[in-house]
Amino acid sequence: MKIGIVGTGMVGSAAGYTMALLGVGTEIVLVDANPALARAQAQDIAHATPFATTVAVRAGEYADLNNAAVVIIAAGVSQKPGESRLALLERNVAVFRSVISGVMQAAPEAILLIATNPLDVMTFAAQRISGLPLERVIGSGTILDTARLRSLLGDHLGIAPNSVHAYVLGEHGDSEVPVWSSAMAGSVPIASFARQIGRPLDEVARTRIADQVRGAAYTIIEGKGATWYGIGAGLARIVRSITDNERTVLSVSQVSDEIEGVRDIALSLPRIIGRQGVLATLMPELDEAERAALKRSAEVISGFTSKLEF
Amino acid sequence: MKIGIVGTGMVGSAAGYTMALLGVGTEIVLVDANPALARAQAQDIAHATPFATTVAVRAGEYADLNNAAVVIIAAGVSQKPGESRLALLERNVAVFRSVISGVMQAAPEAILLIATNPLDVMTFAAQRISGLPLERVIGSGTILDTARLRSLLGDHLGIAPNSVHAYVLGEHGDSEVPVWSSAMAGSVPIASFARQIGRPLDEVARTRIADQVRGAAYTIIEGKGATWYGIGAGLARIVRSITDNERTVLSVSQVSDEIEGVRDIALSLPRIIGRQGVLATLMPELDEAERAALKRSAEVISGFTSKLEF
Amino acid sequence: MKIGIVGTGMVGSAAGYTMALLGVGTEIVLVDANPALARAQAQDIAHATPFATTVAVRAGEYADLNNAAVVIIAAGVSQKPGESRLALLERNVAVFRSVISGVMQAAPEAILLIATNPLDVMTFAAQRISGLPLERVIGSGTILDTARLRSLLGDHLGIAPNSVHAYVLGEHGDSEVPVWSSAMAGSVPIASFARQIGRPLDEVARTRIADQVRGAAYTIIEGKGATWYGIGAGLARIVRSITDNERTVLSVSQVSDEIEGVRDIALSLPRIIGRQGVLATLMPELDEAERAALKRSAEVISGFTSKLEF
Amino acid sequence: MKIGIVGTGMVGSAAGYTMALLGVGTEIVLVDANPALARAQAQDIAHATPFATTVAVRAGEYADLNNAAVVIIAAGVSQKPGESRLALLERNVAVFRSVISGVMQAAPEAILLIATNPLDVMTFAAQRISGLPLERVIGSGTILDTARLRSLLGDHLGIAPNSVHAYVLGEHGDSEVPVWSSAMAGSVPIASFARQIGRPLDEVARTRIADQVRGAAYTIIEGKGATWYGIGAGLARIVRSITDNERTVLSVSQVSDEIEGVRDIALSLPRIIGRQGVLATLMPELDEAERAALKRSAEVISGFTSKLEF
Ligand SMILES: NC(=O)c1ccc[n+]([C@@H]2O[C@H](COP(=O)([O-])OP(=O)(O)OC[C@H]3O[C@@H](n4cnc5c(N)ncnc54)[C@H](O)[C@@H]3O)[C@@H](O)[C@H]2O)c1
Ligand SMILES: NC(=O)c1ccc[n+]([C@@H]2O[C@H](COP(=O)([O-])OP(=O)(O)OC[C@H]3O[C@@H](n4cnc5c(N)ncnc54)[C@H](O)[C@@H]3O)[C@@H](O)[C@H]2O)c1
Ligand SMILES: NC(=O)c1ccc[n+]([C@@H]2O[C@H](COP(=O)([O-])OP(=O)(O)OC[C@H]3O[C@@H](n4cnc5c(N)ncnc54)[C@H](O)[C@@H]3O)[C@@H](O)[C@H]2O)c1
Ligand SMILES: NC(=O)c1ccc[n+]([C@@H]2O[C@H](COP(=O)([O-])OP(=O)(O)OC[C@H]3O[C@@H](n4cnc5c(N)ncnc54)[C@H](O)[C@@H]3O)[C@@H](O)[C@H]2O)c1
Repeated sequence: MKIGIVGTGMVGSAAGYTMALLGVGTEIVLVDANPALARAQAQDIAHATPFATTVAVRAGEYADLNNAAVVIIAAGVSQKPGESRLALLERNVAVFRSVISGVMQAAPEAILLIATNPLDVMTFAAQRISGLPLERVIGSGTILDTARLRSLLGDHLGIAPNSVHAYVLGEHGDSEVPVWSSAMAGSVPIASFARQIGRPLDEVARTRIADQVRGAAYTIIEGKGATWYGIGAGLARIVRSITDNERTVLSVSQVSDEIEGVRDIALSLPRIIGRQGVLATLMPELDEAERAALKRSAEVISGFTSKLEF
Repeated sequence: MKIGIVGTGMVGSAAGYTMALLGVGTEIVLVDANPALARAQAQDIAHATPFATTVAVRAGEYADLNNAAVVIIAAGVSQKPGESRLALLERNVAVFRSVISGVMQAAPEAILLIATNPLDVMTFAAQRISGLPLERVIGSGTILDTARLRSLLGDHLGIAPNSVHAYVLGEHGDSEVPVWSSAMAGSVPIASFARQIGRPLDEVARTRIADQVRGAAYTIIEGKGATWYGIGAGLARIVRSITDNERTVLSVSQVSDEIEGVRDIALSLPRIIGRQGVLATLMPELDEAERAALKRSAEVISGFTSKLEF
Repeated sequence: MKIGIVGTGMVGSAAGYTMALLGVGTEIVLVDANPALARAQAQDIAHATPFATTVAVRAGEYADLNNAAVVIIAAGVSQKPGESRLALLERNVAVFRSVISGVMQAAPEAILLIATNPLDVMTFAAQRISGLPLERVIGSGTILDTARLRSLLGDHLGIAPNSVHAYVLGEHGDSEVPVWSSAMAGSVPIASFARQIGRPLDEVARTRIADQVRGAAYTIIEGKGATWYGIGAGLARIVRSITDNERTVLSVSQVSDEIEGVRDIALSLPRIIGRQGVLATLMPELDEAERAALKRSAEVISGFTSKLEF
Repeated sequence: MKIGIVGTGMVGSAAGYTMALLGVGTEIVLVDANPALARAQAQDIAHATPFATTVAVRAGEYADLNNAAVVIIAAGVSQKPGESRLALLERNVAVFRSVISGVMQAAPEAILLIATNPLDVMTFAAQRISGLPLERVIGSGTILDTARLRSLLGDHLGIAPNSVHAYVLGEHGDSEVPVWSSAMAGSVPIASFARQIGRPLDEVARTRIADQVRGAAYTIIEGKGATWYGIGAGLARIVRSITDNERTVLSVSQVSDEIEGVRDIALSLPRIIGRQGVLATLMPELDEAERAALKRSAEVISGFTSKLEF
């Protein structure tokens, strides 16, 4: 299966590398406004595959995306000094107009997987620009925040992250909502687990962990300028769920008609991902505070998307 | 890391094959009362590795288990016509006296992983015979029943089994206890998930699924005489959790001083598995019926173990 | 991608288990003249997947093979007491007439992968019965003998089997031809490698290894009644090469118009395997003795196929 | 098994990410002169593991490398404007004095795996500074050039890179030596393979491919400023060969007493890699031109190492 990646900077290339290493898809095509960059990334990744799989990796133009099953969009521009968030957003939307028109012409059947920030706003923009059915435009959303939460909870409890079942929902951003009320470890409610294991998860611990999850990107950006490995692995995880029709439940973003009273909104909820994109969306049981926080998160995102003209 | 397997019939060899394919451990030694069988299994498995990993597989004697990190025990005898379950059990205990003495001499530091049925009774026997600390004698327990439950629930809900978080606890046998009250799909309580997705999990569906889980081995045995692939993969999963110090939560058997008022009892509960064996045991939140069923299950097992003289 | 398996005894089920473990294909359908067996195998394998991948495994009828990319045929009958090899062969050809007609109706686009013995004769029969282009009917051939040779040479030289590059060609059977003249270890001719490493590969060592390769199946059959793990992994390896369009070079069987003067002959040569089946066949450089042995091997196979009426 | 990485820029972090994704080692510790960078890389990588394995990744100090089985050294400084190659080299040797003293104090039993350029010179320096036995200081050498050669030859011949058996030997640098005379595809000499397949490997094709291999790093650096994915995968490949005692044959660098008449020289040859480092070195059969080129390559390296004072 062919996978396309448009925008082959740190994030796009890390996603491509991960898929090549793990054998997700059988053919990966890299496209960038800077073709020399796309070529260099493709070659660097291709030199890794003799050690691992037989995934074919190459740079190409939009036309080379024909028949792609999934196209990841990680193209974006950076904030200029003094530029407002909205102005930056508008420039990124302009990038998406160009990118998505290229993709749609070559691969009208592809599922779009969005990585560019601000994630939920760009997912909304991608759906509106492409006109694709809602379930075929997926944003990586809080998949990474969820991984961070599980990683930190695993550390706290002394267990493997994949034995922690907890989600961060809402915006991939400051208003995100870690859901404590239904979090489990093994199949034990996480608070009970923590108590039994002698490492209680009191308000202080929760707040610390939630802060670290929310702040993780900032900390990493401070240390290395940007983040790419975690999101690279997250994108590969979503793609595999699509190509293999896994029907795994992942917290990803998608446009919905309405969530908690907010209309036309893209944010992350647990969703079943398979060959046709989002197969179904689940609404977890939230306590009152979590529900309020999710509504607030929706409003934050809507504050931006409503300013974009579609 | 060296992994030993004593008893290289269908189950032991399937475990060895799985570990060789997936690269669990780096050296696998097969021991059987029938050395020609052990040799044949080792060769058949070894011919598979050039396609996969570089795990070294060979047949050996007990002495070749020296320094093994884990020794799987899948040795056992079959019921003779007219033989009572207790008589069969006593013959299997005799097998274990011989096997465990051989293993302990060669590999006193090894963790024992028991596969022989009746699983919980043999796990109890193995701990008593070896005199090892409780946490270093693990029975595969309900890991397989749990996998079956997740597989069936995944089918019912149309999602990947690994997005289902549910356990079967208690005896690996007829008195086993599927825990519905805390079962989740994604991070949504399973009943709510089922309702949202339009595939309700009513009493009838639950009973059907529980019956299928309990009856799965019987159905398979009817069709093919015995079961080996599922348990082979389950054993490999537990071994990897040990060798890689994963600290994954798995439902496996271990001797406890007391469970639900029943003393000196081996049965399955969610346990954290790592390099030192069972690192901790969790007691999930059970509703009243589940708690009663777990107690009953403990009593069934105790009915056998109390008859064995240790 | 859907993979079908017809004949779900030890070999067919081991292939299915391996593909489920390693994530080869995304859907596996098991068909057998004994549907209870196919169901039992499918369930046993399905219980293993929650530990590994999300490959869907189920039993079915021929109709369920529709759209399969590859169908493995491992159906066969055993020798009756006193039955001649030719009589057995004719019964197996009868099985193939029934099996292939079922497969072709449901999945006319599938590539056929033959495992039933006598391998090369059955590959020939499958091609003639199906009428498929030569490159779309592949026999597992000497892939297993090649793996055995590499395994034994790796042991002899103290290196990983996948650093040994050597093939067994010709018949999957007693007349098979290990090719020493072009065998390499690392990228060093194997004789030179052996000398440098102080473990010479003299005539005696070669004969011993060749005998062990040729006799491997017999030894294993003596110890465990049949062989299945090695061939299960070999079949999965070939299927992955097809589904992922790997274009790996493997020694497998296929019908050729002529080899070493023998016409209409199926035997193993190094072949490039990809999404369309055999993409090309290579004739390795053989010394005179090897060339003569290959001709003899072709004649042995032809001795059988010429007696079958197609 | 614990793996250390000192120098966590692009190369060191890519190696760590790859090992975390593929489950090489069970614990990875990142050390850098810039501890904020090491922490950021560790966190970014750790966020990827919930999607893949349970490898534990963290930043640390030298003391945290205690008991590491392997320590990768990818620390280095960049050329200052106007700085000579020798001056740069001396600054890198100074870095190594500090790094290796830190590593040796914490992990005297570790095998050192060198990635810093100029690779062979730094491998030589690392061995001299550490005083470790020759076989315990390995340079990644031409493993990457070999991968590039196989990748390009695979493209040329239309086959999987892992069906190409060919090596680049000598310096990891401009004087490197692709060995055509013993190169194979499948088990067919590559020239014969190319002819049979209708894609001849004439002088022009060879020169073009050799140029591309030699120039690959330059092309990539032009496009993206540096290379990291290919080498990250290469380092992970070598580490796995050590941790799993694979005894795979890889083209890596190591100090030898003498090669082609040049004394005290580190360069790449096919070597068997296992738990104790380099288990043996092979000298491939070279034609006269290749032998001369290897000697020249040794002289180029010696031109630098002889100027360093050890
Ligand atoms: N979703 C997440 O969790 C997550 C995590 C990290 C980063 N990100 C986001 O991912 C995006 C990419 O980050 P990065 O670090 O890779 O940035 P980067 O600057 O390294 O790469 C962006 C690439 O987009 C390309 N590009 C710009 N305009 C284009 C156009 N019109 N057509 C094609 N390509 C174009 C650029 O040439 C560049 O190579 C950013 O928006 C970043 O904020 C998201
Ligand atoms: N835990 C589970 O979920 C599960 C699932 C399936 C089977 N099982 C159990 O696993 C056990 C093995 O099943 P199997 O199908 O492999 O049986 P099997 O008969 O194929 O193999 C048993 C092997 O034990 C060997 N053996 C007997 N006595 C021995 C001794 N004293 N020392 C060394 N080896 C000895 C036999 O030679 C034989 O090879 C059975 O008890 C079976 O009930 C457990
Ligand atoms: N290629 C190799 O290297 C290799 C290695 C080992 C075995 N084999 C061969 O593989 C074949 C299978 O071996 P096995 O051990 O699995 O045998 P088995 O007896 O366990 O299985 C054969 C299966 O074929 C089924 N079958 C028979 N007639 C059928 C029909 N008309 N339609 C559908 N299914 C039918 C049977 O019901 C049975 O389940 C044998 O011919 C054996 O010699 C080949
Ligand atoms: N072997 C190969 O095939 C290959 C391929 C690519 C790059 N390289 C080489 O790998 C090296 C690293 O490249 P990179 O792109 O990661 O560079 P980089 O600049 O991104 O990283 C180098 C790191 O080393 C650290 N460092 C410097 N001095 C140190 C000290 N005294 N102690 C600890 N850490 C120290 C720096 O802080 C920096 O983080 C370079 O020498 C490069 O040429 C080799």
